[in-house]
Amino acid sequence: MSQKIDINVDMGESFGRYVLGDDEALMPYVTSANIATGFHAADPVVMEQTVKWAAQYGVAPGAHVGLPDMRGFGRRRIDISPSELRGDVLYQLGALEAFLKVHGLKMQHIKPHGILYRMVGEEDRYIEPFLDACADYNPELIIMLHQGCEALKRAEERGLPTAHEILIDLGYDAQGNWLLERVKQARSPEEVAARALRAVTEGVIDTIDGGDVPVQGVTVCIHGDAPNAPAVAKAVHSALIAAGVTPASLTEPT
Amino acid sequence: MSQKIDINVDMGESFGRYVLGDDEALMPYVTSANIATGFHAADPVVMEQTVKWAAQYGVAPGAHVGLPDMRGFGRRRIDISPSELRGDVLYQLGALEAFLKVHGLKMQHIKPHGILYRMVGEEDRYIEPFLDACADYNPELIIMLHQGCEALKRAEERGLPTAHEILIDLGYDAQGNWLLERVKQARSPEEVAARALRAVTEGVIDTIDGGDVPVQGVTVCIHGDAPNAPAVAKAVHSALIAAGVTPASLTEPT
Amino acid sequence: MSQKIDINVDMGESFGRYVLGDDEALMPYVTSANIATGFHAADPVVMEQTVKWAAQYGVAPGAHVGLPDMRGFGRRRIDISPSELRGDVLYQLGALEAFLKVHGLKMQHIKPHGILYRMVGEEDRYIEPFLDACADYNPELIIMLHQGCEALKRAEERGLPTAHEILIDLGYDAQGNWLLERVKQARSPEEVAARALRAVTEGVIDTIDGGDVPVQGVTVCIHGDAPNAPAVAKAVHSALIAAGVTPASLTEPT
Amino acid sequence: MSQKIDINVDMGESFGRYVLGDDEALMPYVTSANIATGFHAADPVVMEQTVKWAAQYGVAPGAHVGLPDMRGFGRRRIDISPSELRGDVLYQLGALEAFLKVHGLKMQHIKPHGILYRMVGEEDRYIEPFLDACADYNPELIIMLHQGCEALKRAEERGLPTAHEILIDLGYDAQGNWLLERVKQARSPEEVAARALRAVTEGVIDTIDGGDVPVQGVTVCIHGDAPNAPAVAKAVHSALIAAGVTPASLTEPT
Repeated sequence: MSQKIDINVDMGESFGRYVLGDDEALMPYVTSANIATGFHAADPVVMEQTVKWAAQYGVAPGAHVGLPDMRGFGRRRIDISPSELRGDVLYQLGALEAFLKVHGLKMQHIKPHGILYRMVGEEDRYIEPFLDACADYNPELIIMLHQGCEALKRAEERGLPTAHEILIDLGYDAQGNWLLERVKQARSPEEVAARALRAVTEGVIDTIDGGDVPVQGVTVCIHGDAPNAPAVAKAVHSALIAAGVTPASLTEPT
Repeated sequence: MSQKIDINVDMGESFGRYVLGDDEALMPYVTSANIATGFHAADPVVMEQTVKWAAQYGVAPGAHVGLPDMRGFGRRRIDISPSELRGDVLYQLGALEAFLKVHGLKMQHIKPHGILYRMVGEEDRYIEPFLDACADYNPELIIMLHQGCEALKRAEERGLPTAHEILIDLGYDAQGNWLLERVKQARSPEEVAARALRAVTEGVIDTIDGGDVPVQGVTVCIHGDAPNAPAVAKAVHSALIAAGVTPASLTEPT
Repeated sequence: MSQKIDINVDMGESFGRYVLGDDEALMPYVTSANIATGFHAADPVVMEQTVKWAAQYGVAPGAHVGLPDMRGFGRRRIDISPSELRGDVLYQLGALEAFLKVHGLKMQHIKPHGILYRMVGEEDRYIEPFLDACADYNPELIIMLHQGCEALKRAEERGLPTAHEILIDLGYDAQGNWLLERVKQARSPEEVAARALRAVTEGVIDTIDGGDVPVQGVTVCIHGDAPNAPAVAKAVHSALIAAGVTPASLTEPT
Repeated sequence: MSQKIDINVDMGESFGRYVLGDDEALMPYVTSANIATGFHAADPVVMEQTVKWAAQYGVAPGAHVGLPDMRGFGRRRIDISPSELRGDVLYQLGALEAFLKVHGLKMQHIKPHGILYRMVGEEDRYIEPFLDACADYNPELIIMLHQGCEALKRAEERGLPTAHEILIDLGYDAQGNWLLERVKQARSPEEVAARALRAVTEGVIDTIDGGDVPVQGVTVCIHGDAPNAPAVAKAVHSALIAAGVTPASLTEPT
């Protein structure tokens, strides 16, 4: 059997003098890059550099859109209005697209960052405006969100392309909910690799109370701002290959 | 003889709770809109509203890119690096393009705002990175700058499309230099209309020391943040038509 | 009988090129100024100008602290942490105090702005850190909040000075809750003046469903960003005086 | 002979999720802390933490005021007006003072950061408004700037307290000018320690073209955002003590 899985990583989260993550070291082990778009992290110079690396390493680029809150790194909920959500998503999609365009790349996917991931993935007030913005902008844009969330169901009802993801470096509770960390903690590369492998091959992930919950997805996520992110990505990449699973982006031809 | 002229106005300069200008009132008298892109003014909701009005009133949209300085309204010089200039321009172009795309419009032109207008129009350090960014992004994008400036010469040497503009509501000195105002002062509509007419039909504009200097352009600019901007735009529009000059955007088919 | 009441108004809400409110016109009719401190509105130049006017007109100054959200004007809830709340409050208090110090004024009160008013007035998570910050900074600082709210009760249990206020230009529901408006609507000066008078002399205010609710306070608030704020303030001021009620700041000696 | 010298370090330059420098590791080797005030770096939570460490380690605190440019880390020149300079300085002084007050500390000094150091130290347009702001705020506040600069001369003419500093981890040219680095480069701790010692005991510093220039000061600066800042600080501290020079803050009683 020839199984494939996408490995997606948050990238381009540096800002001016502030360096976060080691994006170039990550690139060889990643198939899809979630590129920050200047609201929760990044600036235009960081964005262009990240896009260049994606082009160089053959990593499929996506927009990692966030709330307008650099200080809170997009992890503090802001009660924006639906029209603000729509505007902010479109603005960020376009901003990233400019860099992709000048470097000859096509935008593969959109993935919301931080607390916005939860807001547009699970909350009625935001799901529809989010899907509207994506569909209005580009109906072929793949919407990447947590496996099984409400927004993915509705996207699929509309016929929009989706990618169900598994958050292999975050905690899960017994109900299959993932837990947001304000500052990403380090996990051992071996642990994350083992979780990735179980998730992909067995369809389960361990929970914070010691059990397992079923998960199902086409992509696994590694957070780029963890202190040891490149080691984690390398371990996941190697473990998957060793198990006969081929890392490949969402749009890579088989 | 059937003469044509473009009337361009800065628009979409409101920001959140802060309202600046009366864009919808301006639209009927304008042929090209310079739409603020979120760095010196505007936010995504304001941008989408402005784009909708441009679509509704048939006004050709352009990107009014600025320095990242909301508090200074893009009128304070910041010594950005050439790569920051490039990144900031591309980012803003893309951001606006997203709204144009979802509303079925094509970006006609780019015009730098405030002190950036001077920086990329006249300074060696910035001219080339600015033209590179424009050309890399879209070689058909019309570059709108002050008539006769160095950047327009170089753009034309590269074969890039340009629009020479005359700043009919700003002061000129005897050398033909225009004078930046930190807060736009009101001028009488009649005065601006008369200056527009002389500029278009006689090719001269009055100077602050009481003389005239020659000017030549395909577009005249009215600043949207002047307190009486709609009255000024209407007066200019009427005076031109009355003199047999047809207001038309840069890309309008004859 | 000699009754006194404070009239407090939000002031100093302009920002760079963006003018909001006509503060100098308001000053003669106001006894306490809630001065924006640069997070939801204002910049340091605006703050110094506002402080100068307060000194000139003899208006008692207070800090109008807000969430760090200029675009949302402090009216969008942000889930900040308690230590962020503490830090942001202290930072803003200190910033305003610098201008008061150089102009020879003493800070009379603190009043949270927009949605922060509700967060620190009513929510367990924020009440204590807010009161801690106020008390640590200056235990004589008067805490101005909505009459009868939980934070005022706890402040009084701690022995901190308080000022109960009545929001005479906002809607109330039958339970005595006030309603936040994202953009302040104009109400007729006569209507607000009549509401002020009833609130002060009869202890009731009308509700959106046509009834009355009891209110009790030592200060009435007028929002400075209403389009007709100076006319409203003048009407309230005159109506109170005509009814024998003396407008006086919270700290004015009798 | 008992010689004394102050060791000042830039601190508190982290911002939200972005960590810069290892302030606590630096504290034992430092006598004066230049604490960032939220314009070029820092946020209120970072500021309070830095102030707590200063209190705990007995380090004298000062305000490290900067241009309002987080992305450029205060190293990009912005042509602010003199009244903006004044307002921004006062605002930042007050903001820091709030944290000092609640932690029982007295503000020892003010030191401008990045390009603002040059602007207020050397440029006519800014020197006077800067000195006015300092003197209006607190005439006992020590003004720390580069040894021999114009602003120090004028401060002394006014009778304001000053501290001449030597930048022992930056390059000097043959004229005694120091060179700003956009991103601080690492120098070996031994090299910086040797430069500190020569500066303090011999009154010279080496230049980028291989010579020496005379320098004279009461404080030596180490940049906290250098990757090896704690090692540098420790080396400087040890080398000075070994040579019989006592590290002591500007205000420490002998």
